[in-house]
Amino acid sequence: MFLKNAWYVACTPDEIAQGPLGRRICDERMVFFRGPDGTVSALEDFCPHRGAPLSLGFVRDGQLVCGYHGLTVDVHGKCASMPCQRVGGFPATRRFAAVERYGFVWVWPGDADLADPAAIHPLEWADNPEWAYGGGLYHIACDYRLMIDNLMDLTHETYVHASSIGQAEIEESAPQTKTEGDTVVTSRFMENIMPPPFWAAALRGNGLADDVPCDRWQICRFTPPSHVMIEVGVAHAGHGGYHADARYKASSIVVDFITPETETSIWYFWGMARNFRPGDAELTEKIREGQGKIFSEDLAMLEAQQRNLLDYPERNLLKLNIDAGGVQSRRVLDRLIARNQAALGVAS
Amino acid sequence: MFLKNAWYVACTPDEIAQGPLGRRICDERMVFFRGPDGTVSALEDFCPHRGAPLSLGFVRDGQLVCGYHGLTVDVHGKCASMPCQRVGGFPATRRFAAVERYGFVWVWPGDADLADPAAIHPLEWADNPEWAYGGGLYHIACDYRLMIDNLMDLTHETYVHASSIGQAEIEESAPQTKTEGDTVVTSRFMENIMPPPFWAAALRGNGLADDVPCDRWQICRFTPPSHVMIEVGVAHAGHGGYHADARYKASSIVVDFITPETETSIWYFWGMARNFRPGDAELTEKIREGQGKIFSEDLAMLEAQQRNLLDYPERNLLKLNIDAGGVQSRRVLDRLIARNQAALGVAS
Amino acid sequence: MFLKNAWYVACTPDEIAQGPLGRRICDERMVFFRGPDGTVSALEDFCPHRGAPLSLGFVRDGQLVCGYHGLTVDVHGKCASMPCQRVGGFPATRRFAAVERYGFVWVWPGDADLADPAAIHPLEWADNPEWAYGGGLYHIACDYRLMIDNLMDLTHETYVHASSIGQAEIEESAPQTKTEGDTVVTSRFMENIMPPPFWAAALRGNGLADDVPCDRWQICRFTPPSHVMIEVGVAHAGHGGYHADARYKASSIVVDFITPETETSIWYFWGMARNFRPGDAELTEKIREGQGKIFSEDLAMLEAQQRNLLDYPERNLLKLNIDAGGVQSRRVLDRLIARNQAALGVAS
Repeated sequence: MFLKNAWYVACTPDEIAQGPLGRRICDERMVFFRGPDGTVSALEDFCPHRGAPLSLGFVRDGQLVCGYHGLTVDVHGKCASMPCQRVGGFPATRRFAAVERYGFVWVWPGDADLADPAAIHPLEWADNPEWAYGGGLYHIACDYRLMIDNLMDLTHETYVHASSIGQAEIEESAPQTKTEGDTVVTSRFMENIMPPPFWAAALRGNGLADDVPCDRWQICRFTPPSHVMIEVGVAHAGHGGYHADARYKASSIVVDFITPETETSIWYFWGMARNFRPGDAELTEKIREGQGKIFSEDLAMLEAQQRNLLDYPERNLLKLNIDAGGVQSRRVLDRLIARNQAALGVAS
Repeated sequence: MFLKNAWYVACTPDEIAQGPLGRRICDERMVFFRGPDGTVSALEDFCPHRGAPLSLGFVRDGQLVCGYHGLTVDVHGKCASMPCQRVGGFPATRRFAAVERYGFVWVWPGDADLADPAAIHPLEWADNPEWAYGGGLYHIACDYRLMIDNLMDLTHETYVHASSIGQAEIEESAPQTKTEGDTVVTSRFMENIMPPPFWAAALRGNGLADDVPCDRWQICRFTPPSHVMIEVGVAHAGHGGYHADARYKASSIVVDFITPETETSIWYFWGMARNFRPGDAELTEKIREGQGKIFSEDLAMLEAQQRNLLDYPERNLLKLNIDAGGVQSRRVLDRLIARNQAALGVAS
Repeated sequence: MFLKNAWYVACTPDEIAQGPLGRRICDERMVFFRGPDGTVSALEDFCPHRGAPLSLGFVRDGQLVCGYHGLTVDVHGKCASMPCQRVGGFPATRRFAAVERYGFVWVWPGDADLADPAAIHPLEWADNPEWAYGGGLYHIACDYRLMIDNLMDLTHETYVHASSIGQAEIEESAPQTKTEGDTVVTSRFMENIMPPPFWAAALRGNGLADDVPCDRWQICRFTPPSHVMIEVGVAHAGHGGYHADARYKASSIVVDFITPETETSIWYFWGMARNFRPGDAELTEKIREGQGKIFSEDLAMLEAQQRNLLDYPERNLLKLNIDAGGVQSRRVLDRLIARNQAALGVAS
């Protein structure tokens, strides 16, 4: 069950730099390419002529040419031409609303007429020169909601990421969860603890002592359809924690865009935005590598969990206080999906 | 849906030179081997004793010995012997009609009693010393009819084979299609064009200038169940084109035997027969390599098309004039399959 | 169809030396680990918290800690603790009866309350210093009953293992089969034959001439659920054959524990126990390597047979005298499975 009338991250611009990109999103096969003015378009990845994927073709003058027999569609999905054919009556290819913003290509897998670019999740740091961003993409064979659960309950860091960001104090600090409209926020604050390896390195990278007690925080924000932004950081203890002045802390935003591919697989766009040493490309790359390694640990666990759930579909799982973030996020999703379907019912 | 009462190419003689060969054809598991007089036999690849594939066994004195417990069948499928067993009452193994001819092994997956070797598609060039043949075998995960479509509409050469045999003039020349009995012929003639790389090389190989305007032709002939023979060639312009004298042209026959394995996979026997420099084995090999590369380009496209069609089973595809060859070929097939089934109805 | 109330070999101790082991047995996902006193425990491999496999976790103080969020279960499957959670009301994880004995870990996939360790198949040689054992584990994609058939009819050695233990005299000697309670015994005796390569080597390894006529025997014993122990050996002819004095013979026991994974796959624990030169580790390894090679030949045949049977599910196979061992073993199994199900019917 997907929320189809919503904006998802579809790809990054480099993925369509050399030609069209085929990607399945919310069970829809899509092709992404740049039109004549360079803006991004998304169409169904299915040539109306013989059913070949349009993504195997190429872009010519901002139109997408099928690589099988040359049927050419424009950015609206309208058949623009085909050698020696009158294409006036050819069926159009379904168009999906797509927008390039904040360094990502966004797509709306549902009704294109309802797609309002103003509803794209704002990323304040994206166009701000005081911030830097690095990230990557993983394909994971799990239900997208398992990844939401994962990110809304960072207790797992102690176990899955024991050697980098995990530490016993995480699970000893009870998180607080609240829903505000469609946003779910789970926060956890740890005081007067020693920073784990990842954060010790971040402190050093920020020119700060790494061997002193710190306050640490994790503020996870779920917004529909499946974005999770996590404010994370440490500050030298006694300076206000989360509210400490910049010269006492190292902090950043963990960025997670979870794009369903099918009911049991996702495209997981992960990354980190930081507002210290933004011009240091080497640091960006180093953080990216560390984060990529950490998130590959989640990958293995989530795929094993998914296999288990498929084998035991009838089991009721526990809903503990630490699971409140995932539980409330799913509740928001269920509500929005039901509203979508009700709207469809009225329309029909 | 297969036309089972028909002759298909099953394998080449070299594939059964070392022992029995197991191959699934029209969803029937078969084993091919040579009997006591060296002629080819085909049986169901299933030992009546414990169900092991007979193709894992070996041939002894022209009989097929199961590699599990030694049950031995003769070329008729009759159980000939088994150590320490009286085999008189053993069930026979199903026999398929098989014939070796023209350098191929042919099989009739339907009712063996109806199989008439005279109905095997004649290959005039096969036993003619003025002709040479080279070819190969690909396994492709697509419906056999998608390959018929592919070969009956060479418009795709411009796109799929742009670097070898494709050229813009192909799609600019409308093809003509006609059905004559069970044969469908799609022809395309291009006049006064420059030869594309493959044909330029063929002209040179034939001792002819490759930098002069030429006439080019493609005459695709579908015959049931799924053979497509294509006369292709170029002649120096102004000498009669297809009808030009041999000293002005380079021509050959593209040979395509499409043998269904399952509903969505095929054994594709491809090759080229030519009547110039037939004794030049090096040239034969060079052409074979070039053709193999070209046909591997089709493979990728057809498998992607098949996946798309499985995902969108309800879609109606376009039927353009260039598709007439495939459309009419399918019509012939549908008619013959229906006739087969009607005959079965009467018989039962 | 499995006999669930029975003891199966689950793994060897070395497989749980470094941490928990996940293994599917009779379609149940299980995790094996050592408790606080070092004894082996088996639980369902499913964390009641979020469904992650417990086998991805670790053992701490003899309790199994989930590697996702730290839920900890004891050897009884009771939730022992979870950081910051009251676990009193947490559901228990299903426990399977497990016992370590004779160098193997045994599991009872059915009702743990019915599991009596006294019912574990006795291995007289296992704790006897005059005997040595070596073996291995193969995963094979076939119904466990196909492997029982295989081992209860050694006629196949002539074909599948022609270069090692096969010889024509096997199939020329009719086997005798009898059922005694739940045990099925198939025996075959060959007199005055030359030993095949494997046994010639065993004679030499035993300090005996390998170029003289011998008597050879194979006594296969099936016991439920799916163990097959085979007494095999050769003796210099004229000294009493199977009953010959030790100084005239080389003999051993082929050990086969067939543990179903799913309906169409098994964990196959194979090995050989011998009572000559038990301290010669090099010989043990040499025999193990030879046996491993021989059993890999069965693997290929059984997987091909299984694929064929799935494709032709309606076929009746032959039941010859050589198949009596398999046929009678299946009859024992069917009877016990029916009895198990009847007992369940009474209980419900």
